[in-house]
Amino acid sequence: MDTAASDTFLSESSSEPASHTSLEPPKKVAILMLNLGGPDTLDAVEPFLYNLFSDPDIFKLPLSFLLQKPLALAISKARSPKVRNSYHEIGGGSPILRLTQEQARNLEATLKEYFNLDAKVYLGMRYWKPFTEHAIREMQQDGVTEAIVLPLYPQYSVTTTGSSMNEVKRWMEKLNYHPQLSVIPPFFDHPAYKASIAEIIQDGLDSHDWGCEKKDVTVLFSAHSLPKKFVIKNKDPYPEQIMATCRTVMQEYFPNQLWELAYQSKVGNLVWLGPQTDGILHYFSATSVDNILMVPISFVSDHLETLFEIDLEYIPLAHQLGLKHVVRSPGLNSRPTFIKTLAKLVKTQLDNKAVPTMMVS
Amino acid sequence: MDTAASDTFLSESSSEPASHTSLEPPKKVAILMLNLGGPDTLDAVEPFLYNLFSDPDIFKLPLSFLLQKPLALAISKARSPKVRNSYHEIGGGSPILRLTQEQARNLEATLKEYFNLDAKVYLGMRYWKPFTEHAIREMQQDGVTEAIVLPLYPQYSVTTTGSSMNEVKRWMEKLNYHPQLSVIPPFFDHPAYKASIAEIIQDGLDSHDWGCEKKDVTVLFSAHSLPKKFVIKNKDPYPEQIMATCRTVMQEYFPNQLWELAYQSKVGNLVWLGPQTDGILHYFSATSVDNILMVPISFVSDHLETLFEIDLEYIPLAHQLGLKHVVRSPGLNSRPTFIKTLAKLVKTQLDNKAVPTMMVS
Repeated sequence: MDTAASDTFLSESSSEPASHTSLEPPKKVAILMLNLGGPDTLDAVEPFLYNLFSDPDIFKLPLSFLLQKPLALAISKARSPKVRNSYHEIGGGSPILRLTQEQARNLEATLKEYFNLDAKVYLGMRYWKPFTEHAIREMQQDGVTEAIVLPLYPQYSVTTTGSSMNEVKRWMEKLNYHPQLSVIPPFFDHPAYKASIAEIIQDGLDSHDWGCEKKDVTVLFSAHSLPKKFVIKNKDPYPEQIMATCRTVMQEYFPNQLWELAYQSKVGNLVWLGPQTDGILHYFSATSVDNILMVPISFVSDHLETLFEIDLEYIPLAHQLGLKHVVRSPGLNSRPTFIKTLAKLVKTQLDNKAVPTMMVS
Repeated sequence: MDTAASDTFLSESSSEPASHTSLEPPKKVAILMLNLGGPDTLDAVEPFLYNLFSDPDIFKLPLSFLLQKPLALAISKARSPKVRNSYHEIGGGSPILRLTQEQARNLEATLKEYFNLDAKVYLGMRYWKPFTEHAIREMQQDGVTEAIVLPLYPQYSVTTTGSSMNEVKRWMEKLNYHPQLSVIPPFFDHPAYKASIAEIIQDGLDSHDWGCEKKDVTVLFSAHSLPKKFVIKNKDPYPEQIMATCRTVMQEYFPNQLWELAYQSKVGNLVWLGPQTDGILHYFSATSVDNILMVPISFVSDHLETLFEIDLEYIPLAHQLGLKHVVRSPGLNSRPTFIKTLAKLVKTQLDNKAVPTMMVS
């Protein structure tokens, strides 16, 4: 595997601090980091689901001004027991807050170390605490007038980055607070991000005693699915950006490896982006494929979809189907190459957009 | 549906003939048209299969110099009864020769009518008569020194265009005949080709009394599959070009229509490009989809894969699965918009590549 991306990062960045003299005050940057959030306790499952199903960017119901909230209440009540049980299986709650907070702290440290930037990360989750509202209020109290926005979604979707940005705008409107925002674009094709995905693939390949040579293991990317009607209606670039990440990572790092992209987590009876992850496992069981490395894509930290669905549903299913070796790659979490990717995104955004650095009180 | 493409064609082309004065001799162009070919009788099925399995561009067997031909013989003997029966079901042979000859005649007429070009098409099939060898020999006898090559594959694959071009080169070498060739590039994204695909979709939508509004019919493109290992090893652009055609046709002509791309005709137990057409029909039967328009893609005329597999296997399967309305779009064949597409490709190639026109004796 080519690790040139991270080396380049180090050599580029090591020359940066030299430009700052000791007479300058340390630069301060406000970063608004956005993510989905997840219930931290089992009792938080139902209100978390209610928030999710209340999101008008995801569920546009007929007569939504009238029915959105009652329907969200009904759906979250109905789905809560099953989802609660899933969170119970992975330890009683989502690790997303802890993992995202770690990413935030590591990002601050990396920006300081490599770019001499004093950054403060404001963490705004979409569906659970700390809510986006909380982050915006904190920025307002700190007197932040300009901020870099970092949506933790490498691939853009109306349902993730789009929904979070709408929530940011709603709260800024409501609080009559209008800082200048510079939003980091989707980084699905950023070389450093792709290098970090290549690393988790290599780690996955190295972590197991396969029944074949590593080069003969089939890489199965699994991304969160979406209803196709939604994708088409909203011209959502999500599936194309997902495919672009997978294809270019494989072409650049593992050009001769067999790979496939599937989509997981479909619910209901609409047509969703496919092929479905479980369907592909059935398909593999009818073919010459026996050794599979599952690589979660579209998320940047461990979550219910990896810890429960992949580890406790898909992999046991694959074994039942007779597939011999089925292993999951680790999540990105606070892997140094990934944190450096985030730092580089912030630095590039500051340089390119000429957003002045700012003091945070 | 927007029919601007064909109108543009007419208005552009109508101004062309004016540039030729009566003093000029009529221009003559040699066109080498390449296609797959198919057995014209049931007795031709086995030797046709033998030619297919002997193709080193498709099947690279270990010790191929020794084993290619005996293995091809064994495989074609083994598969012949099943395939022979399929051809029996569609009338005792492949219609591909008749349909391709019609396309050739219509292309000649269209080039004359719109561009005042006297063209002679030499038809070279890859696996059955008239063989590529035959076309090359005829060109040599006619004293052709320069020719436009038109592979009838809108999307490039090593297994189709690539194999045919290799066959052309082999025969030219063998016959010590070296005319200047100008090869028309893959036209998967040509506006006129996309307009012709949009037409067959619209025709399919208009041809049936659906159980819903036409805009709610799901469009299911079905393309010929290939082993994924082959695609990855050869960096075959085929699946990306197939996807590009489907996506842009739908975006440009039917932006709100639900659609899916699947792959058909897999044999053996390797992993092939997916999802499989039959798998998607199973999937649709478990969803809210009831009305499906199947659109053959990657072929430009009716053939075993549409007339037998789609019409006599997939559609009956879909009905068995409880899908209510399942209809196939017509093939492109000699549809005027498609023939004009071919004429425009030839004309553009002549203009861009500055290949001089030539006399054919």
